[in-house]
Amino acid sequence: MGSATSRLSGTGMEHCTLWKADRSPACRAVMMALDSMNLSITEVDINMDKGEHRTQEMINLNPLQTLPVFKDRELVICDSHAICTYLAGRYCDSGRLLPQDPGGRSIVDQHLHYNSSIIYPRFKAAAYPIIYESCNFVMPQQIADIDGTYSDLECMLYKRTWFGGSWATLSDIVFASTVSTLNVMVPIDKEKYPRLSSWLYRISDELYFVTANRKGLCEFSRRIGELAQIQQS
Amino acid sequence: MGSATSRLSGTGMEHCTLWKADRSPACRAVMMALDSMNLSITEVDINMDKGEHRTQEMINLNPLQTLPVFKDRELVICDSHAICTYLAGRYCDSGRLLPQDPGGRSIVDQHLHYNSSIIYPRFKAAAYPIIYESCNFVMPQQIADIDGTYSDLECMLYKRTWFGGSWATLSDIVFASTVSTLNVMVPIDKEKYPRLSSWLYRISDELYFVTANRKGLCEFSRRIGELAQIQQS
Repeated sequence: MGSATSRLSGTGMEHCTLWKADRSPACRAVMMALDSMNLSITEVDINMDKGEHRTQEMINLNPLQTLPVFKDRELVICDSHAICTYLAGRYCDSGRLLPQDPGGRSIVDQHLHYNSSIIYPRFKAAAYPIIYESCNFVMPQQIADIDGTYSDLECMLYKRTWFGGSWATLSDIVFASTVSTLNVMVPIDKEKYPRLSSWLYRISDELYFVTANRKGLCEFSRRIGELAQIQQS
Repeated sequence: MGSATSRLSGTGMEHCTLWKADRSPACRAVMMALDSMNLSITEVDINMDKGEHRTQEMINLNPLQTLPVFKDRELVICDSHAICTYLAGRYCDSGRLLPQDPGGRSIVDQHLHYNSSIIYPRFKAAAYPIIYESCNFVMPQQIADIDGTYSDLECMLYKRTWFGGSWATLSDIVFASTVSTLNVMVPIDKEKYPRLSSWLYRISDELYFVTANRKGLCEFSRRIGELAQIQQS
């Protein structure tokens, strides 16, 4: 289990710790949120292949044995979406990433729940059989489900540059982590989903995407490439 | 498509409308949140069996064609969790259902995302094959997954009366809608999960559970009972 400080030399918050694995989109969403706010916290790399998320210390922090795990003094949060909204609500006064009015926030919350309830389960259904069960391809039903997700997201981007509206919010950061990962397994068809593919291209240029998502995404991509036949677009 | 006012004679908010189907746990969560806050809004019953959620009017409101759909003047929200947090943030000043400080809110958000990402997909995996695909039993993998959910929830209730702490919050309301529904398909083992079964007994006595959850739960229970062999505890 290795320990490291943040990737950027931002505002130091030594009282906060994030236990994470770069390969996990959920962890990368939190890392991007941190870098987007220029917050530097203690980060601990967990090797899931070695079962480091199942040590007694980790189970005491999070009995559900999932990553990421975040701690701010006595507060422990174990869901990536709740960690992102906590960080933005607690440490980003401007409301840039998470609107402070209930109406604006509800739009971001809605996107985050779409990520929780639809995108993440579809990511797991496609990736876990390859990573954990010796399957060497993305199954047809999973390809169809991921395509359905792209169709939903294309629809959400109608007349919008970013999911939240005029600038990138937590909606975009959270979707960037999962959609960039799905795109490795089922490449986005640019003809069919022009708004989604432009958005992914645009967000891939954001500094926080480069500093906090790219390395883990490459790691995931390499791992999946070794284990499965993936059709490249 | 029928129109109705709220079940309780609470504070009238005619500028808000909820399109819902009582059988859906997601809709019942919003209905309980409304009754818990004593808010009376316009409610429209949608018959999903007749495809009323797929009319052009409904697709214009919610291209994803899911229920519930909520509208407050120009704001449209289509995720039950985001609707509940919006209502509590906008219309419940006390912070009783949804703490106003980022730390307290993060605990509720975490529970809501557990409901989105784990409980609801497991509910759908167990119920949809019965309701939509002529399957007449809950499949073994789905029973095991639901049992795993009960185990997680039992763990979350360690040293707690309610999921949020000392009183019922949106965590309890949202879990009440899904857990009471799962309990129809896979009855909670009282010996194995004493805290969870006591909690369900306790919340079933709350007025909002009686006014807003019970009717739809009975409707779901009757429907599932007609279609499948369900083992009763």
